[in-house]
Amino acid sequence: MRIGIDAMGGDRAPAEEVKGALEACALLDDGDRIVLVGNDAAIREQLAGAGSRADHIDIHHAEDVVGMNESPVEALRTKPDSSLAVLVQMHADGLLDACISAGNTGAFVAAAQMRLRRLRGVRRPGIAIITPTYHGPVIICDVGANVNCRPQHLHQYGIMASVYIKAICDVPRPRAALLSIGEEDAKGNELVKKARDLMKDDSDLHFIGNVESRDLFGGACDVMICDGFVGNVVLKLMEGMAGGVIMSLLEELMAAMPAQESSIKKAARQIQRKFDFNEYGGAPLLGVAGICIICHGASDYRGIKNAVRVAKEFSEHQVNQQITELLSGQRTVHG
Amino acid sequence: MRIGIDAMGGDRAPAEEVKGALEACALLDDGDRIVLVGNDAAIREQLAGAGSRADHIDIHHAEDVVGMNESPVEALRTKPDSSLAVLVQMHADGLLDACISAGNTGAFVAAAQMRLRRLRGVRRPGIAIITPTYHGPVIICDVGANVNCRPQHLHQYGIMASVYIKAICDVPRPRAALLSIGEEDAKGNELVKKARDLMKDDSDLHFIGNVESRDLFGGACDVMICDGFVGNVVLKLMEGMAGGVIMSLLEELMAAMPAQESSIKKAARQIQRKFDFNEYGGAPLLGVAGICIICHGASDYRGIKNAVRVAKEFSEHQVNQQITELLSGQRTVHG
Repeated sequence: MRIGIDAMGGDRAPAEEVKGALEACALLDDGDRIVLVGNDAAIREQLAGAGSRADHIDIHHAEDVVGMNESPVEALRTKPDSSLAVLVQMHADGLLDACISAGNTGAFVAAAQMRLRRLRGVRRPGIAIITPTYHGPVIICDVGANVNCRPQHLHQYGIMASVYIKAICDVPRPRAALLSIGEEDAKGNELVKKARDLMKDDSDLHFIGNVESRDLFGGACDVMICDGFVGNVVLKLMEGMAGGVIMSLLEELMAAMPAQESSIKKAARQIQRKFDFNEYGGAPLLGVAGICIICHGASDYRGIKNAVRVAKEFSEHQVNQQITELLSGQRTVHG
Repeated sequence: MRIGIDAMGGDRAPAEEVKGALEACALLDDGDRIVLVGNDAAIREQLAGAGSRADHIDIHHAEDVVGMNESPVEALRTKPDSSLAVLVQMHADGLLDACISAGNTGAFVAAAQMRLRRLRGVRRPGIAIITPTYHGPVIICDVGANVNCRPQHLHQYGIMASVYIKAICDVPRPRAALLSIGEEDAKGNELVKKARDLMKDDSDLHFIGNVESRDLFGGACDVMICDGFVGNVVLKLMEGMAGGVIMSLLEELMAAMPAQESSIKKAARQIQRKFDFNEYGGAPLLGVAGICIICHGASDYRGIKNAVRVAKEFSEHQVNQQITELLSGQRTVHG
């Protein structure tokens, strides 16, 4: 397969993007290619000295770059030659089988929605992110693609995210739950209550009801469904809090045991790795007719490399075919 | 003032409630009384041996108890003699100046909304909780009273929570922000965008725009406004995560440094205290014509004692009078 990477997208692009692509070559099968999309000269500079390690890498020049804080729709309109726009267009044109970007997430999602079709039966694409917990991985969907959700969107996120985690993490019968503010049926806002009514009778889904946000760490479910506003708040709170709590604990420990400073810092690094998005690769945009893997803006080469792994597994496990089989029929049922 | 406590409410009632009331007597001024509402015999058993320490405590018998998992409205309808219903009714009748419960939060909020009036100009009451961070306290409102918010509700939460944190935490000019998924104006769902339009021109509010959930720990704002669904998700995620991250770090550290086990556990306790709701007392239900302090169901005596302190400060700083001054005028402005 041909996997395209936005070489200009992340906070440390193109250095980490190119390094990640080189590392990812070890994951490729015969005939696979990685295509770095972006400024030709800048990419070549980073590839200098790679020698035969770059044999599986092609470069496709793109003149422009979308900034992290640009308005997505405006940026796509005014910068058709940006690495992100070109990347997604190449995927839409069949020149790539998957695309990866650590750039402006809003612009990536907007480009994917505009240039790629939706899978048959899918109402709205959603971003699904796998969160490591001590009871195993939990997938949260949506974490930011769709902030004004309807009940059926949540229902479909449940199905798509279940297919994905089953395929990628070998969870045989993923338990899907709605993120709410209490386990009881009556708890939640209107959106959650209506989504619950749709999900509870769907035999394609192993729906276990509502869970609360604190259950994320307790092994209560494998799939946690929420609207993109709530999911994005959850995602960023975890990011902020992991850092905050770890820093607090380090301060206390180093004050109490100054002689153990190096051991303490080492243990803290172990923990930080457990909560490190770079170790888990990118998040797929589920529901588009393509493979779009979104990386955190702060991704280093490991994040990019893992995104390549995710793109390959997504393809091998035929995630989109499975989603289409389940959702294209739904069209008739729910109108 | 007369402060009523639901003696039967929390997970470890009445033991922790009575112990908390006894400890809180040290905070009282001349003429202040604490009234324990609940099963007379059970309360007396816990007070046995307290001697003169119980001089400032009265008992008001209530026959029934609302369970933690009962439907709020149903429980209030079928159990008019529950400690919670009697407590709030006594406050409504002027027999108490404040009420405190660690019982069923939904039932407490419902009782307060049914039996107490709203302050003049207030559309919906909201629960405000103070979160400790390394940059100082941040107040989050609403964390669960109102899950189907309108823009004006969020606007009023900004004003009420600002009054409260100014009074209780001595923050002279609290910076109020809307919790969203990006700092830019264009980011957020429809609710947040409309609330932003209302808040940005209000000179009674020091509104600084949107913040993200990760900014909670970075000193970006003093007041974080959100709807009750999002706020409840944030609150419970922090609770779950503080425990999860601390447990992970402890495991790593103890594996790395078995000889230091006791020092490590001691440092972990210090941290847990920083994130311990018991140290920060209860959360007020802002906007009702009374003083209702909601405690976590798992509160121990310290949580109850701190709630008494909060009730007294709420009264002394005339929080309700200040809210009324700011919001009763708004009625004319916003219809």
